[in-house]
Parts: sequence; C-alpha cells; structure tokens
Amino acid sequence: MKLTILKDHLNEAISHVAKAISSRTTIPILTGIKIDATSGGVTLTASDTDISIQSHIEIEKEGTTIIELRQTGSVVLPAKFFMEMIRKLPSQQIEIEVKDHFQTTIRSGSSEIQLMGLDPEEFPLLPLLEESRTIRIPSDILRTMIKQTSFAVSTNETTAILTGVLWTIDNGKLKFVSCDRHRLASREVNIDLDPSQRFSNIVISGRTLNELNKVLPDHNTLIDIVIADNQVLFKIQSILFYTRILDGTYPDTSKLIQETFQTELSVNTKQLTEAIDRAYLLSREDKTNIVKLIMREDQSIEVSSTSTELGKVTEQINLNSIRGDLLRISFNSKYMLEALKVMDSENIHIGFTGAMQPIIIKPEDGADILQLILPYRTTN
Amino acid sequence: MKLTILKDHLNEAISHVAKAISSRTTIPILTGIKIDATSGGVTLTASDTDISIQSHIEIEKEGTTIIELRQTGSVVLPAKFFMEMIRKLPSQQIEIEVKDHFQTTIRSGSSEIQLMGLDPEEFPLLPLLEESRTIRIPSDILRTMIKQTSFAVSTNETTAILTGVLWTIDNGKLKFVSCDRHRLASREVNIDLDPSQRFSNIVISGRTLNELNKVLPDHNTLIDIVIADNQVLFKIQSILFYTRILDGTYPDTSKLIQETFQTELSVNTKQLTEAIDRAYLLSREDKTNIVKLIMREDQSIEVSSTSTELGKVTEQINLNSIRGDLLRISFNSKYMLEALKVMDSENIHIGFTGAMQPIIIKPEDGADILQLILPYRTTN
Repeated sequence: MKLTILKDHLNEAISHVAKAISSRTTIPILTGIKIDATSGGVTLTASDTDISIQSHIEIEKEGTTIIELRQTGSVVLPAKFFMEMIRKLPSQQIEIEVKDHFQTTIRSGSSEIQLMGLDPEEFPLLPLLEESRTIRIPSDILRTMIKQTSFAVSTNETTAILTGVLWTIDNGKLKFVSCDRHRLASREVNIDLDPSQRFSNIVISGRTLNELNKVLPDHNTLIDIVIADNQVLFKIQSILFYTRILDGTYPDTSKLIQETFQTELSVNTKQLTEAIDRAYLLSREDKTNIVKLIMREDQSIEVSSTSTELGKVTEQINLNSIRGDLLRISFNSKYMLEALKVMDSENIHIGFTGAMQPIIIKPEDGADILQLILPYRTTN
Repeated sequence: MKLTILKDHLNEAISHVAKAISSRTTIPILTGIKIDATSGGVTLTASDTDISIQSHIEIEKEGTTIIELRQTGSVVLPAKFFMEMIRKLPSQQIEIEVKDHFQTTIRSGSSEIQLMGLDPEEFPLLPLLEESRTIRIPSDILRTMIKQTSFAVSTNETTAILTGVLWTIDNGKLKFVSCDRHRLASREVNIDLDPSQRFSNIVISGRTLNELNKVLPDHNTLIDIVIADNQVLFKIQSILFYTRILDGTYPDTSKLIQETFQTELSVNTKQLTEAIDRAYLLSREDKTNIVKLIMREDQSIEVSSTSTELGKVTEQINLNSIRGDLLRISFNSKYMLEALKVMDSENIHIGFTGAMQPIIIKPEDGADILQLILPYRTTN
C-alpha cells in the first residue's frame, strides 16, 4: 500500500470510526484501525465486537483530489496513537507507505513516523447482511427518538435485555420503548413504509444508540437502516455503523400503561422541570432522591424535599388545569427530571391512578411520546 | 439577618469564594460559606486554611440597588448546596432571613428553602496584615508570570518548599522562580517601586497561584499585594485573596544557570514546539518521555523518539542559526514541551554546555524569562 491523502479528510474518517474503539479490549487487533486502500478509495474500520464502524474516503470529491493512490493494500495501525498523531501532523499532505511485515511509514512535511502495523487478515470481518428489510428515516427524528428513550434503559447487566431499547414496527409506525423496572419511556413516529411490513423484538443496546447519536451528522439527512436476524446496520452517508441485536425476549410493558386516570393535570413543562430540579438538589444530598408532590384545592401543586442534615425545599406551581381526586404522591426526582427534560412540548399532561400506581406523562399536544414513573411508597 | 439581594451579584461573589472551598476538609465549618450583612454591604468568606477568599457586594452600584438590608447579621451556610441552589433560583430577587439557632430561610419567586446554618463565630478569622509592605502590579503581568513558572513546581510534598514559587524583589524588579530538581522556570519584571525595597524568600504554593489566576479578572487591572511575615494578601477589586507563605528556605538555584555556552542555537518556537509534541506522543506511549536531539552540519536539528512496541518518530527542523560544537542530547519531552508552551516570543535561543549539562531556553528578543531543563543520561 502506498498513497497520499489529505489530512482533514483522514482526520474526519478517523473521528467517525473512533467511537468503536474500546480502550478496555484484551484483543490486540481491536486496539487498531484497519485501513484498506483500493481503487475506489480508502476505507477505515474499527470494532469492539459490539459495534463496528466503517468510514469511506473517496479518491476525489467536488473536483478536489483527496487521495493519490500509488499501490493498493491493507494494514492495521494502533488506533490511539495513529489518531493523535494524524491530528498533529504539520502538512495537509500525508503519505502512507506499507512495506514488508506491515512496517508502515507516514510522512508529512518534515515529520517521518515509522509504525509497526498488524496483519489486516486478523481483523474481524464485518457481517454480510441481507438488505431485504430496510427502513429509511430522517437523522433528526432518529436522534430525537434515541434521546427521548435511551436514558431510561437499565444499567443492570444481569437482565441484559433491559439495557436495550425495543424497536417495533407496526401499522406504518416505528416505536422505541425502554424500561428499567422503575420507569418507562416510549416514542412513536410515522414512517414511510408498506403498512404490511412488521418487525418485533429488535432490541439495541442503549449505550450503542448513544454512540450512534454522536456519529449522526449535524444537518438532517436520510438514514437507511438494514435489519437482519442478529445485526442492524445504519448507513449514514459515507459511514456504515453495525451493531448486534440483543439476545432474549423483551417483556410486554403495555399492561403498565393505563388509559384512564383518577387524577389528571396540565402544567407548564419548564416551570415544573425547574421546580423539581431545585427539590432534586436537596434530595440528592440525602442520597434518597425522594420528592413529594401534594395537590391543592386552589389548582396548584406543592413539590418538596427534605434532608435531615440540610433542611427543606418547598416549591409552589400553578397548574393550567386539574381534574379528579387531590393526591399526595412521592417519586424519584432524578427519574422525573430526566423524563421532563426530553419533553419538547410547552405544556404536559400528567395522569395518576392513585398514590401507588404509575405516573404517566405525555405532551399536551400529542400522544407520540410517553413517560412512565413508578411512585415511591413513603409513610406520609 | 434579613435582606433581599440580586441573584446575579450573589452568584458572582459565590463563584469567587468557591475556589477556597475544599471538598476534602474534615472541619465541618470549612464546608460552609460565611455571609456577613452589615450597613456597608454583604461579604462572603470561604477558607480551606491554606487559602481564604473574601468577596464583597455593595448595597448599591451604578445607581442600581443590589441589596435591601432589613437587619444585619451573620451565618455560615453549606457551600456546595448553597452555591448550586442560588444558581437555580427562579427570580432575580432573593430574600435571605436568619432566625434563632441560625435557621435560614431563602425565598425567591415560588421557591422557599429552609437551611440549617452554622454559627459564624466558629468560622476562622482572617489574618490582620500590616499593610506597610505593598507592591502593585497589573493583573495581566501577574497572570503571565504565574503561567510561565507555576507548571515547574515540584509535586513532591516531602520537600514542601519546592512546591512553591519563589518571589524576590531586588533593584526594582520582581522575580518568580520555580524548580523541581529536574527543571527550573524563572520570569522577571520591572515594577514601579522604590529600588531600595527588597523582599526575599517569599514562597507561595504553585497550586494556590493557579487558583489565584482563576480569580483574576479578564480585563487588565492593578492588583495590590500586601506581604506580611507569613501571609500574602492579593486585593483584586472587590475580592481579598489570602494565602500563607510556605515555611522553609528556598535553595539557591543561581549556580545552576550558566552564562556562557559551548553551543548556542536559534529556532522558530512554534516549529520546535510542534515537532517535540509529535515526538512526545510516541515517547509517552513508552512511558519514558525521552526525546533525542541531534545537531547537524547543515544548520538543522533532528528530534526523535523511539518506542520498542510502536515504532519511531523523526522530525527535521531548520535552525535560524547555530554556533559551537554539534551535540547529541536527550531530555524529558514533557518538560521541554511545557517550557516551550509558555515562551511567547517567535524565536527562541537555546544554550548548551555539553550533553550532561543544563539546557537553557530564553526568548531571542529579551532575557526576562528563562527555562532550564536537565538532560537525561542515555547510552546513545
């Protein structure tokens, strides 16, 4: 392999695949980035076995020559050092030459770096996916759906299936659900798809989806998603992002979600979020996160938290409306805060079915997002 | 104590004193901020015994009423919680009321916070300094002098005196020196002072000076520095910053610094810094930080580092000039990099007296800053 490549383009491709490099891997080849140079361009690949990312650099783009290819070939170079060094090279022109035993020389301006490369044959192959099951959605919607659900996945690895976000497609709708036994987040969106097409039990790690979000471009673009038996592939412009589907069957969470409520209220999202944030500050010091909500006759609620060491925070919030029995209910303020922060409507609707039943939060102007929080049992 | 105060002004004062709050203290009163309300305004004080910072808020400023004082008094409130809560309060108007047993109520908009305050009598008193020995320097110069020397203090607490920066005043010049046995940094500046005035052996913790730098304002202003027997006080607008002088006698470092050299060279600062940065990247992976410099006949130098696992980095740098014997010398690239990064002249002069003698770096256009690095003994 021998080629010259423009630094900015190489840097960009490296930054994409870098998300798949694990610093904790014990497999030496996976600490590297694989570089393949062919007549079609240069492709970088990194993998931590859960996620694999490939980024492609074209020979030419918009009339600019990006790569001058002298000889095709492949090599695996140590990722961390390669990444940092390329960023610091003195010239836009970077020459990479691989000789016998994958001995690699990188030249740029007055710098020369000799690196011991590894055999690309040892690098794991990317899965070959049958592209018959493909959906297409705008990157902005995908990003929002991930943000609105991934925070609520379980961090407990003993029930691995709950560390993922459940994807289902039915009736031309794509739905994400996450649940950690104490709370549930779900978001639904209409997609342009043959309504007869159905997918169920596709569960993707919440951590992986957060990494995917970092690779999604800043501007809105269409993303093709290929769903195979045990892998999902996201095609994001010049990037291919592979991840495996989690094993197991996702529990049926639909029974948790009531449709009729004993009490319903409407409140300004920002006002409630900021009040709970202040109550959370104190409850966090006490390591309980418990916040109490009391409904009042005068169409207001009181949110409060108490710390035996520090004191008490009390917040008054006027409601837009309230209907039904006036309840007292306690909940984990961190969970409530995380749920409220991803609600993008000005006002929200909260439904209660008693002090021991799930709290259901929806935007007032639609039903495509739903957040559920189980209350705490407290003595008062 | 009872008063109303504007949130932004209170926040600013809290952010100043926050630098003196230690999260590791075992003395409960020091986890607090002392608030004193008098007819002259509100004063906040925090202390970690090494550093004490006081910030004053005036009753009125530029025609705006900042504080409405109803009743004078004092209280100590838990710093971390108070700081975070004030930032998040819903209204600019914050009411603080202290009742019996330092029970404190903070009201703002629809929020009410009750806090258990502590007795301000338990808070350590600030030292009373005799203001006879005072120097005045612009904050921009102080900031630069700290930046150019504090990085080279020792981090080894067993020789506590070397963890500080030595201040001396002689011949109307203020000089900072730091030294950790492997390197030395010094910076000198003319100050407007009676030339007969002399100070010696004032040593201030490097860590403290870095904290002081964070409190210095963004715009240039004159700082009064009061130097007492075992304390120094920096007066920065409405802020008083107290720190103790380190005990002990600072070693005489003047003999380390040669005046005549076997070899002298002049080189572009940025080019050398970037080349050493790349060589450092590899040397760091090998955990040695060793970089080798070889002088060549053709008025150039080669800087290189080698890692048994990764490979080799070689950099060619053209010199402006070179005079004397051509040497090969090895040094700690991290130390060299830190020294080069604080040189603010376009070209630097480096002096050598042999492969085992100190390397002396000065700006080409002046002598008020000097960096010294001891070379490594290597076999080749």
